[in-house]
Amino acid sequence: MQAEIITIGDEILIGQILDTNSKWIAKELNKIGITVYQITSIQDNKEHILKALKEAQNNADIVIITGGLGPTNDDITKYTLTEYFEDTLVLNNEIVEHIKTLFAKINYPFTEINKNQALMPKSCIPLKNELGTAAGMWFENKNKVVIVMPGVPYEMRGLMTKKVLPKLKKTYKLKFILHKTIQTYGMGESVLAEKIESWENNLPSFIKLAYLPSFGKVRLRLSAKGNNKQELEDKVNNEAKKLLKIIPEIISGFEDSETIEAQIGNLLTKNKQTIATAESCTGGNIAHKITLVPGSSAYFIGSMVSYNVAIKINELNIDKRLIEKHSVVSAEVASAMAKSIQHKFKTDYAIATTGNAGPTTDTTDKTVGTVFIAVATPNNIITKEFYFGKPREKVIERTTNKALEMLKKEILKKD
Amino acid sequence: MQAEIITIGDEILIGQILDTNSKWIAKELNKIGITVYQITSIQDNKEHILKALKEAQNNADIVIITGGLGPTNDDITKYTLTEYFEDTLVLNNEIVEHIKTLFAKINYPFTEINKNQALMPKSCIPLKNELGTAAGMWFENKNKVVIVMPGVPYEMRGLMTKKVLPKLKKTYKLKFILHKTIQTYGMGESVLAEKIESWENNLPSFIKLAYLPSFGKVRLRLSAKGNNKQELEDKVNNEAKKLLKIIPEIISGFEDSETIEAQIGNLLTKNKQTIATAESCTGGNIAHKITLVPGSSAYFIGSMVSYNVAIKINELNIDKRLIEKHSVVSAEVASAMAKSIQHKFKTDYAIATTGNAGPTTDTTDKTVGTVFIAVATPNNIITKEFYFGKPREKVIERTTNKALEMLKKEILKKD
Repeated sequence: MQAEIITIGDEILIGQILDTNSKWIAKELNKIGITVYQITSIQDNKEHILKALKEAQNNADIVIITGGLGPTNDDITKYTLTEYFEDTLVLNNEIVEHIKTLFAKINYPFTEINKNQALMPKSCIPLKNELGTAAGMWFENKNKVVIVMPGVPYEMRGLMTKKVLPKLKKTYKLKFILHKTIQTYGMGESVLAEKIESWENNLPSFIKLAYLPSFGKVRLRLSAKGNNKQELEDKVNNEAKKLLKIIPEIISGFEDSETIEAQIGNLLTKNKQTIATAESCTGGNIAHKITLVPGSSAYFIGSMVSYNVAIKINELNIDKRLIEKHSVVSAEVASAMAKSIQHKFKTDYAIATTGNAGPTTDTTDKTVGTVFIAVATPNNIITKEFYFGKPREKVIERTTNKALEMLKKEILKKD
Repeated sequence: MQAEIITIGDEILIGQILDTNSKWIAKELNKIGITVYQITSIQDNKEHILKALKEAQNNADIVIITGGLGPTNDDITKYTLTEYFEDTLVLNNEIVEHIKTLFAKINYPFTEINKNQALMPKSCIPLKNELGTAAGMWFENKNKVVIVMPGVPYEMRGLMTKKVLPKLKKTYKLKFILHKTIQTYGMGESVLAEKIESWENNLPSFIKLAYLPSFGKVRLRLSAKGNNKQELEDKVNNEAKKLLKIIPEIISGFEDSETIEAQIGNLLTKNKQTIATAESCTGGNIAHKITLVPGSSAYFIGSMVSYNVAIKINELNIDKRLIEKHSVVSAEVASAMAKSIQHKFKTDYAIATTGNAGPTTDTTDKTVGTVFIAVATPNNIITKEFYFGKPREKVIERTTNKALEMLKKEILKKD
């Protein structure tokens, strides 16, 4: 079963926004056994939408369209689809009531423009959007399915999860698609390829291998499709095991579907342990990432964002002489911050960060991009120095990721 | 002049990686006056590449392809293009030497597989890739240009900046494309559309308007294309000025110029004033947003992320009886948190947030999505209640935006 994803919106084609919807949709479709043949981003333009939809219906069994369902003049997706299916629009009273209820909650007036959003093509099955005003649509045409959803990511995700994925599973008898990604470190792509050549050549024909190189690491992805999930898993795992024997020294792990902050959340919840952060250069971003996880209030106690040196001294009780001796950007200060917040907030673990995010170096002599991360555990403290380059946002993001990675490693050691 | 971008790689279509290349390329092309007609992501599959390339050459004058130029078996882009152009591959000695030099630097052996990367189609102009082993290619065919680059983002960016963009500017006489985005806060898309309807209807035909709604804000984008840059700028700015007169109270700034946190930064720097935050439901996100701004250490003192109620009591000195009487999610507690952090961190302004971000309501009886925001100024304190619905990320993001908006309003009052 093949699908094509079409995202509609000039903002994607002028490079104003990143299309994150397609990646998410593709991953979810894969999980239920649907292959994505192509992802196409097109303009808010009638002829372009008609052309892309026609081509997509030739290529795939299922076409998933997002974007252009808002109430304003630049949103033409629904009207264009109505034309494509030679259909007519009728007012859907249930959707009118839904929009009125949504608006009453936030004290927005219901206007004539909003009524347009409640117009639905006669031939479609409307998909009620609990999280917004633009309903989704499910069309069945020439033995193929065309699904339309709003482009606002959380509304689209809500519709996919609650309506589209269950309905697709009910409509089609789907195969299983399995991906397993093996992370390797420290060997170049071409040397690695020579080393595993004979293993690669002997892979069963239904298992496909891809090399995904990036800075200092190469990920190897095995993909397989079949009717029996257990059998697929066994065969793919068997190939991964063979690989582990050929290159044991460079395999660092297998890719996870969960974010690292969610994995940390699960570990801490299971262990009934807690965490706090004392953040300087990350400015609260680690706390923000941790608290994005539902249920984080069970293990996240709080954070002291000690941006100003006075807060480090007065609130985190860092010895002024320690700062004078080593500067605020130092292993000693990072370590003292982690210990202090762990003690003050009475937690099992603590993370502390201090560094120069740039673009200027403030008061220290450390290069822009130099960062110290400390992780305090129930019995230990680990402090490391990093150089994360430029620009500012990258330094903040890399420090956040690295700190969470260090924390996870320490929690796992304990297990 | 129109371009189409084709990204090749199964990893995009299975949702394993986010295609950030297309956004970056689209933005850069726009800057030099090239419109992107379509972005297409396709599989590492010969037939699919041939089909997509043929269609792209029908749609656009310039086709930009990334991905599939690695040394391993799953990389077939170069071989497929050679077939498409009915060309043959020849060894390029300059590229052989370049790869050898690169590998010597990092102590990687040069293998037979790497030699394949130095094969170039006869008819193309090779584009030397200083940052990697896969060279780019520039084809001219049927009065159209086809450009091929590796998918590794920093290699692609290097090639675009140093080779492709300068060569495109030299090859074509290009028009100017101008985008100006106006940020508005606190008014729904449909109400806003009615309010500016007559302005929108009277826009010159060469200026296009788009509505970009997201959590609590709507961005209005004006796009124009023409031969005279100054004239375009004047006309677009003139329309923006008219808009400023119609909705002065909800315009918070212009994009690419400045985010609201940068505007707040400028105001505080100018006034030599400071700010701190006491965050509960936003979990450090307000501090994170503020500290994304370079130079924020001049006015941002720090934040207390008091996620756990014990931190509110022990660190922010919130009276336990106040919490028992009104619950942690209340105007009284938000207000007390703002006053406390302002006093404790000795700042001119302070922001406090408390609310239920969901998905469950924790210990309070307040609905998920209910949030209180308090802003303390040098002489006053403003506290407001909001209902931000679901899901969790949306509540956090809307609370952050609203808090910054409230703060900016208060700072401006003072001026």
